[in-house]
Amino acid sequence: MLELPFLPFCALLGSLGAVCVAFVSIWCQQWHGGFAWDGSAQMFNWHPMLMVTSMVVLYGAVALVYRLPFSWGGPKFPWKVLHGTLALVAFSLAVLGLVAVFGFHNAHRTPNMYSLHSWLGLATMLLFSCQWLAGFTSFLLPWAPAWLRTLYKPAHVFFGSTILMLAMASCVSGINEKLFFSLKNGTTAYAQLPPEAVFANTLGLLILLFGVLVLWALARADWKRPEADLVDIHQPLLSAEHCCLRSTLHSQDCQP
Amino acid sequence: MLELPFLPFCALLGSLGAVCVAFVSIWCQQWHGGFAWDGSAQMFNWHPMLMVTSMVVLYGAVALVYRLPFSWGGPKFPWKVLHGTLALVAFSLAVLGLVAVFGFHNAHRTPNMYSLHSWLGLATMLLFSCQWLAGFTSFLLPWAPAWLRTLYKPAHVFFGSTILMLAMASCVSGINEKLFFSLKNGTTAYAQLPPEAVFANTLGLLILLFGVLVLWALARADWKRPEADLVDIHQPLLSAEHCCLRSTLHSQDCQP
Repeated sequence: MLELPFLPFCALLGSLGAVCVAFVSIWCQQWHGGFAWDGSAQMFNWHPMLMVTSMVVLYGAVALVYRLPFSWGGPKFPWKVLHGTLALVAFSLAVLGLVAVFGFHNAHRTPNMYSLHSWLGLATMLLFSCQWLAGFTSFLLPWAPAWLRTLYKPAHVFFGSTILMLAMASCVSGINEKLFFSLKNGTTAYAQLPPEAVFANTLGLLILLFGVLVLWALARADWKRPEADLVDIHQPLLSAEHCCLRSTLHSQDCQP
Repeated sequence: MLELPFLPFCALLGSLGAVCVAFVSIWCQQWHGGFAWDGSAQMFNWHPMLMVTSMVVLYGAVALVYRLPFSWGGPKFPWKVLHGTLALVAFSLAVLGLVAVFGFHNAHRTPNMYSLHSWLGLATMLLFSCQWLAGFTSFLLPWAPAWLRTLYKPAHVFFGSTILMLAMASCVSGINEKLFFSLKNGTTAYAQLPPEAVFANTLGLLILLFGVLVLWALARADWKRPEADLVDIHQPLLSAEHCCLRSTLHSQDCQP
């Protein structure tokens, strides 16, 4: 497969993520009047903006924290905190993105939660909240037993990728839906492929490309933290003893 | 994670796949007049029917061929042929599904290939065709050198999952789009959540559940063919010598 070191790959991926955020911002500003927080259509615009930024771009960064080679040499604990904190920031921004669409709908007496896009989006958010809570209680709080952590880790890793995949499907169905709404009356119909349609369709493909590249980076065995397959025995948050039980295997993890 | 043996899991997955196909068939028959091949709306119905059947359900079966435990004991060659043949059947049915939607559009002078759903769907099909051709020439024809097979195998595995994921996103955006078309005039609007909307939204979630379960089965280390990480040295189609070079490792692979 592509022989690119991780850090240049990260720079490429970061640029692609920035392009995705720029695209969704330009789409909202150029064709839909920019941003506001007043129940108007400009309030709705925060929905795609915040969902793409949080559930795709920032989420991708969260997923790749443990792949940073300079995170392998020291204790894992600060990287766990970074992973959990970034995930919480992503989740909070996504909740704001939901508030934006519910606020817009309620101001216009439009029903909520009827389209498949909305069902999928909410299911993805619910999964993400469960994932965060289960990750926090299992890997950062001190009372989860080692056997539970061992049992749960593969599920956490799998659902990490699954949630990103569902977020990508939510974005694609949402962009498609929005274009059918906005290119119906008063503007060029979607079927005539006006510049907005080409632009937003391209945004959808860029989001998918970004997500697939994140999943590819996660799948590469040689980019995994060397002890990824070992039991994550200790180093929880709030634990009195920060020295791990596997010091014979990884003495660097026992640094304070 | 869930401790279910592979074969009962397969039975469960097969039932879920059958439910998906039954749902899309009932949707087309109950609310859209059934099936025909005459340029009418009933010709369009073959599009969701064939795409879900081929690119999700049958594709899932194709992906899991090497996970069947009774395929591990003998030569790999017949399973390679089965994998490639089923993939070709899935691809052919999907092409028929594309012909159905293009035929319907052309008969009604509706433009083709404007929505993000159509862009994503076509990109998925193009990737699938490249995947099949590259897999066939690398793993079944005799002239691909071992180093190329070794290099390509992780990419083939990764894109196998990626194509399924893109097919799931295509299905979700397609169902969402179809409901906005069909529940607009003359019937209850989508926003009122009539029975058709609930039914088709549920179909979308079932498709995602099916796909996620396939990806989960593919990710499980203990369900992988024991030699999955070794180099796939030999046993190509049309090869004069069917005995492998790694007989010391896997003598069963050398059976004629």
